[in-house]
Amino acid sequence: MGRWEPGAGGRLREAALSLFVERGFEQTMVNDIAERAGVTARTFFRYFADKREVLFDASAEVEEKALAALEAAPATASALELVAAALDAAADVIGQDRGLARKRHTVIMANADLRERELSKLAKISAELADALRRRGVGDAEAAIAAEAGAAVYRVAFQRWVDAEGGDLDLRGALQAGFAQLRTLAAPRAG
Amino acid sequence: MGRWEPGAGGRLREAALSLFVERGFEQTMVNDIAERAGVTARTFFRYFADKREVLFDASAEVEEKALAALEAAPATASALELVAAALDAAADVIGQDRGLARKRHTVIMANADLRERELSKLAKISAELADALRRRGVGDAEAAIAAEAGAAVYRVAFQRWVDAEGGDLDLRGALQAGFAQLRTLAAPRAG
Repeated sequence: MGRWEPGAGGRLREAALSLFVERGFEQTMVNDIAERAGVTARTFFRYFADKREVLFDASAEVEEKALAALEAAPATASALELVAAALDAAADVIGQDRGLARKRHTVIMANADLRERELSKLAKISAELADALRRRGVGDAEAAIAAEAGAAVYRVAFQRWVDAEGGDLDLRGALQAGFAQLRTLAAPRAG
Repeated sequence: MGRWEPGAGGRLREAALSLFVERGFEQTMVNDIAERAGVTARTFFRYFADKREVLFDASAEVEEKALAALEAAPATASALELVAAALDAAADVIGQDRGLARKRHTVIMANADLRERELSKLAKISAELADALRRRGVGDAEAAIAAEAGAAVYRVAFQRWVDAEGGDLDLRGALQAGFAQLRTLAAPRAG
């Protein structure tokens, strides 16, 4: 999510997320963020269009990398494997800094508008993955189910990762475990 | 969704949905709805708290029936079978009138606030299904994945049903087909 970036952009992101957690998103002003990061408000606006952008500016990069990974996957990959490859690439971006991801998640969950915006962003990514599957010849309903089921696995893995104590679990690992669980759940049962 | 109800409530629902489609949700006033249904605004408020309630008042019933079906399922049912039973009960309520379901869907998709509200209602139902699975002893992450994957299948089935030309496909049938597809997608592939 660009979260590892050095310099003013990274400091502004860190400052914004900390203030959103401490004071609430609504109560935090751009001036407060700039002040904590030790820059001017004008510098803030060189990096972000507004304070909400701090939370959502990574969407485009995540989407792009996810779609590129799907398109780069071998022709023999199944629909669910293609989705798993796409989400693995998304997790690679998002999973870089759990501290910041956790703050972002806390802020979004505490605000109905942000929550609903996040849900619709996730729905949009899922729709784009389904379209990418269709372009690779996957049937219409099958593409939708694979993309939506993959998004479901992602959400659960993300929650596990964000909630986990200690540093053993990484987001990509949680995602892979989730896909394995989905396979087990959907398998015909013995007996 | 109470959509089959006779009398003033049913007429008001029908009138509201038709007006929302024709004029847009924002542009439709309670007075317009009452007038088209041939009742007074006061009668409207005996049935609905406000115009948005016309779109969302079925949530409680759908949730309740879904949870009851999950709880009534046999102890031998797998986590995904429990979710399928719950969603079958939801589809039984929602699937009664495709014409109204389609209008409702059109209205919601055309308005960002309504769309985001719908997404968060669906997320809430999914969280409740996961909790119900946990109460039946399903593991934490497994419960979340089963509920979210089930919700994914439901959304795709709903879309297919709403979009289908002609009357062959019913919502419960689309849902069953979706679960079968999920099983196929998640199955280990031969070769």
